[in-house]
Amino acid sequence: MPSPLTIWVNAKFAEPAERLLVEGVRPHRVIFSANASVSVLTAGAPDPALAEADVAFGQPLVEQSLECPRLRWIEVTSAGFTRYDREDFREEMRRRDAAFTNASSVFAEPCAQHALAMMLAQARQLLPAYRDQLNERPWEHLKRRADSRLLNGQTVLLLGYGAIGRRVAELLAPFRMKIYAVRRKTYSEPGVHVIAEERLSSIIAEADHVINVLPDNPTTINYVNARRLGWCKRGARFYNVGRGTTVDQNALLEALGSGRVGAAFLDVTDPEPLPPSHRLWDAPNCYITPHTAGGRHDQDEALVRHFLANFQTFLAGEGNWIDRVM
Amino acid sequence: MPSPLTIWVNAKFAEPAERLLVEGVRPHRVIFSANASVSVLTAGAPDPALAEADVAFGQPLVEQSLECPRLRWIEVTSAGFTRYDREDFREEMRRRDAAFTNASSVFAEPCAQHALAMMLAQARQLLPAYRDQLNERPWEHLKRRADSRLLNGQTVLLLGYGAIGRRVAELLAPFRMKIYAVRRKTYSEPGVHVIAEERLSSIIAEADHVINVLPDNPTTINYVNARRLGWCKRGARFYNVGRGTTVDQNALLEALGSGRVGAAFLDVTDPEPLPPSHRLWDAPNCYITPHTAGGRHDQDEALVRHFLANFQTFLAGEGNWIDRVM
Repeated sequence: MPSPLTIWVNAKFAEPAERLLVEGVRPHRVIFSANASVSVLTAGAPDPALAEADVAFGQPLVEQSLECPRLRWIEVTSAGFTRYDREDFREEMRRRDAAFTNASSVFAEPCAQHALAMMLAQARQLLPAYRDQLNERPWEHLKRRADSRLLNGQTVLLLGYGAIGRRVAELLAPFRMKIYAVRRKTYSEPGVHVIAEERLSSIIAEADHVINVLPDNPTTINYVNARRLGWCKRGARFYNVGRGTTVDQNALLEALGSGRVGAAFLDVTDPEPLPPSHRLWDAPNCYITPHTAGGRHDQDEALVRHFLANFQTFLAGEGNWIDRVM
Repeated sequence: MPSPLTIWVNAKFAEPAERLLVEGVRPHRVIFSANASVSVLTAGAPDPALAEADVAFGQPLVEQSLECPRLRWIEVTSAGFTRYDREDFREEMRRRDAAFTNASSVFAEPCAQHALAMMLAQARQLLPAYRDQLNERPWEHLKRRADSRLLNGQTVLLLGYGAIGRRVAELLAPFRMKIYAVRRKTYSEPGVHVIAEERLSSIIAEADHVINVLPDNPTTINYVNARRLGWCKRGARFYNVGRGTTVDQNALLEALGSGRVGAAFLDVTDPEPLPPSHRLWDAPNCYITPHTAGGRHDQDEALVRHFLANFQTFLAGEGNWIDRVM
């Protein structure tokens, strides 16, 4: 391994996080791309400087990464990595014995808190009360109380079960709910019944809350479709902190219209930004946040700390490479 | 004790809860007041039928209760009991060896969930996102993410510490926050540092979240005043699920205006309803719910079950009377 290594970064970090990175990797050197991006969700721009890099941190362009044989490790600053999930990319990374990691653990905590925030906002009728405050300010005491719910004893179904789902289950523990999760590999875990896809139709029919944490990949496109929504309990609440492509939005609109789905809280949509004229904005009991579930004010620092921890493992050799995703 | 007893009720319950009550007290009889009230917060109306009652359940008029010597037990359908907290009333009840109970445990769970809902709605920026949805629907992805917070590691101070505060602390346990509570009788409890009033000025200065759960009584009027708000950390978030009278609202308006208090979530105000022209509705980052923190859709049933459990204790004799509040 050449020494010092060159670490190319195309994430636009605030200055304290930049300094933490530069100091944390010494004596290795960091080069910041001139075309850096503030958002961790958008693809990077091409940058000739990538050719010098041993390590890329951010969102390097896939095509360019394929043409930079010196690259031995890429860490993306997102949980999702759809752009990189291609056979030619995987093959080239394997051929080089290079590593590819994501930052899902940075985003699991805020996503889980965002999901719980949505559940409680719905249960406690915070959004209708705020709409009243922005309008005529009636004091809808009796109506809002009658519509208020406790989470206790209700049933939750998680679609997908990884770092986010596990944390949602931990946050829900004090509410004593019944928690199911569907995923391909089933196994038991304290407090969560992990079920196989075959049991979905019967379990989803029991769920008061269906929380979608599915990633975007070829097997999840439109997973939440008319058929699966049709199995839901009448009035079930639906939350999406996964990816917008995993929901058939026309089917969801229909389910909201018929009352099959009683309320939907979407942090992700397809496309993003969702155009102001899109029907989801006006659908009954449909509440949208602009892909902020993963947001945390200390995101830059958290991403850098995550990278630095992985960097130590990288330097130590790849035998104990714990966070590889491909 | 006469048999059968007469139980007078002036709460307006839905039919299933009424039936549960009638069946639950058999062979004793229930008389429903013709002047029953749907709200558990308003004072009852006079009712001649109260004179026949051994037990009153609801919100019997204080003056009339004093003149009904047959009354041996009053259970109010609220957590608060300010109207009854008078020396003449306490004295008369003691003289009769009568019991007075409230229903605080029915409301502790929803109040605690409401407080957490407010904390998370603020941390995850749900209300600004909803305001955007109701308006031009910009996709404020970067701004909302930058303003999003995690609760982890932050400091909470509870003003008052009873059933609600204890439950708030349980719900917050998975977030690993530092939790303080101030109350007159101090004692240690797992996960919560209970402090005496003398330490308030230093502890409130550390708190990111100040949660007011104080009841209304002569010692709590305007407890949250300009002096105590002045001790707060700049930008602290303030929540009130106690009573509106415990806050000096002019001082709060000033603290919101100066940014000393970064956001306020008020479920209670003084007066209620809060007039549509009141300045609190328009104060910066001030969010108001119409006294719904105690609301639960199963309230009637929960109140009846609470009464029935106490009724068994009452019938068994008063040696093990557990829920007496006066």
